[in-house]
Amino acid sequence: MQSFTYSIPTKIFFGKDQVNVLAEQIREFGGSRVLLVYGGGSIKRIGLYDTVTKILQSNNIPFFELAGIDPNPRIETVRQGIQLCHEHKLDFILAVGGGSSIDCSKVISAGYYYENDPWDLMIGKVKASQGLPLGTILTLAATGSEMDFFAVISNLETHQKIGLGDPVMFPKFSILDPTYTYSVPHNQTAAGTADIMSHTFENYFSSEKGAYLQSRLAEGILQTCIKYAPIAMRDPENYEARANLMWASSLAINGLLSLGKERKWTCHPMEHELSAYYDITHGVGLAILTPHWMEYVLNDSTAADFKDYGVNVWRLNSEDDSYKTAHLAIEKTKEFFTSLGLPSKLHEVGIGEENLLVMAQAVTKNGPIGEFRHLNTEDVYNIYKAAL
Amino acid sequence: MQSFTYSIPTKIFFGKDQVNVLAEQIREFGGSRVLLVYGGGSIKRIGLYDTVTKILQSNNIPFFELAGIDPNPRIETVRQGIQLCHEHKLDFILAVGGGSSIDCSKVISAGYYYENDPWDLMIGKVKASQGLPLGTILTLAATGSEMDFFAVISNLETHQKIGLGDPVMFPKFSILDPTYTYSVPHNQTAAGTADIMSHTFENYFSSEKGAYLQSRLAEGILQTCIKYAPIAMRDPENYEARANLMWASSLAINGLLSLGKERKWTCHPMEHELSAYYDITHGVGLAILTPHWMEYVLNDSTAADFKDYGVNVWRLNSEDDSYKTAHLAIEKTKEFFTSLGLPSKLHEVGIGEENLLVMAQAVTKNGPIGEFRHLNTEDVYNIYKAAL
Repeated sequence: MQSFTYSIPTKIFFGKDQVNVLAEQIREFGGSRVLLVYGGGSIKRIGLYDTVTKILQSNNIPFFELAGIDPNPRIETVRQGIQLCHEHKLDFILAVGGGSSIDCSKVISAGYYYENDPWDLMIGKVKASQGLPLGTILTLAATGSEMDFFAVISNLETHQKIGLGDPVMFPKFSILDPTYTYSVPHNQTAAGTADIMSHTFENYFSSEKGAYLQSRLAEGILQTCIKYAPIAMRDPENYEARANLMWASSLAINGLLSLGKERKWTCHPMEHELSAYYDITHGVGLAILTPHWMEYVLNDSTAADFKDYGVNVWRLNSEDDSYKTAHLAIEKTKEFFTSLGLPSKLHEVGIGEENLLVMAQAVTKNGPIGEFRHLNTEDVYNIYKAAL
Repeated sequence: MQSFTYSIPTKIFFGKDQVNVLAEQIREFGGSRVLLVYGGGSIKRIGLYDTVTKILQSNNIPFFELAGIDPNPRIETVRQGIQLCHEHKLDFILAVGGGSSIDCSKVISAGYYYENDPWDLMIGKVKASQGLPLGTILTLAATGSEMDFFAVISNLETHQKIGLGDPVMFPKFSILDPTYTYSVPHNQTAAGTADIMSHTFENYFSSEKGAYLQSRLAEGILQTCIKYAPIAMRDPENYEARANLMWASSLAINGLLSLGKERKWTCHPMEHELSAYYDITHGVGLAILTPHWMEYVLNDSTAADFKDYGVNVWRLNSEDDSYKTAHLAIEKTKEFFTSLGLPSKLHEVGIGEENLLVMAQAVTKNGPIGEFRHLNTEDVYNIYKAAL
């Protein structure tokens, strides 16, 4: 097990009607004037917009809106949010939605105290000194952004989609009410689950063998996704299913599974190129790539890990040969995603051969990715091609 | 899954030589004059006392010592610590040791700002308003006190051993260096593991069936204890084993497994009476009581939970009948503790019939305990008796 620092300052208020703590929590973190960040109409459809604005109004907390955050949030929107904060002297950011609204809010928070263009933060030109306090109300179990310090922002001009991690971007609090995900449509429940599982896989499959505890916890999160995603799709208002998926989304990426291991992800960066070029749903891209990546990296040095996965998560026969169990576990993974209605090939989402090489080059522009098995440009290209 | 608030402000510095952050972290939390709290000679034997005092001296941080904390720390010592803080104008408490030194330090911290006797806090007469900042350096994987807000303090005059939980008692930081546990003797490694497993069982066996994720995480912690305790006993300087046990100790009780379930423990309060009356090691008492408690609470409504335990933790045959698997899982639990050299009967630690009834009455003085299966005075007495 590698050395690590574990520090998650985000307070989680989990359960039905936890939104009742909102005003008190905003005040606790010094908020008096709020930037309200959200995406499309879904929070209005489920009545959450009304609930939140009524709470703010009845507590005399003025707010200004930054609405229409894109599924892959853009740097232009971040710039706009920072400007709104300065213009209206706002001192607190409240993100209501899924990972996009939260990620966008995080970079608004970090960019607020930086006098130049916030894209500088994303490309690592400068490091944020501090952030405007941020709270979130989650409406989609997927990215885990509600309890981590990462944000992914796209720059359509430069064809870049970049992830940034910085402790100043931790939300101060997040409100996780599973009932807000009752109306999440089938395809988003499925894609969100693929995202949670992919975060887990990225940490689970590792060359660090001494972080046994973290691997067992990862298996618990995978089992939870496998059990509850089908239930949530069959019965969208099943509280137990929505609650387990929601808490799994936070725990999959908040450090619990990654600390003690090396954090060098593969499917995520490979997918970021897909959605930077084709604007597909992140979780859909992950569901397509993951089983192909698994087959590609399966070899003598990784077979035992895939066997563990098969035995501990899919309850396959522990007496069988490693390769047999590994292949079966990968097949189970693919079948599971397909059973959720997710595609298993790139052509199903309109991606052809046209950009495979340039995307593979972009993924590996700073050298090979991954540490479970290092992947160079050719490897990434081969995985894309297998997924066609 | 029940509603909950998750908020763990404690920063964890995990790994070899993390003690190097000590001075900087004390200063970060406003510390300039330190109360150094520790138990017996073990921290001197392993050189940790020298390391810590040299760091404090070379950083010009004066310190005063409160040494000789008992395995079951006493309210007298707490009083003494508070007096030292006032007398020498100390503004930071540093606990170096296991759960006893940390628990004692927590109540010194909470009692510092209270003008009357700190026992008032323990018996719930008053609630602490704030605490003196506290940091810990852990030398024993067992209680999890390094990352939670609980403390257990004994009052020998009144024959009371009371647990108190209060967010003001969260350590600001804890340094977890697995090499500090290399010299932990066999019997303490065993008892510490029983304590970690008991914390896990207390949360795992619950009438709340909707917290599936938490139960799977609990199984991961149990598997970790079962794998690594024997390795740590056979090969005390095995870093991987010590690291996994140490991190398991923190995660077993910091809320990860309990939040979303009702927290009404049984074996712990039953054991507290044993160690209040007989001053036995907490983990030893737990190892004795746990399998007897399991057999006692096994019935038609709990058999499925014990089967899950058997199948998921002990890898028993999932095709077998629930009762068969349950009994086998309980037998495995008992055998495991015995294999670690722990006793399985009360008479082995010198406990006879003499106080069973009065202890059973004390455990249940506020009504039945537990929620997995409610236990009244007679039930507790029966379990003690079965364990004789």
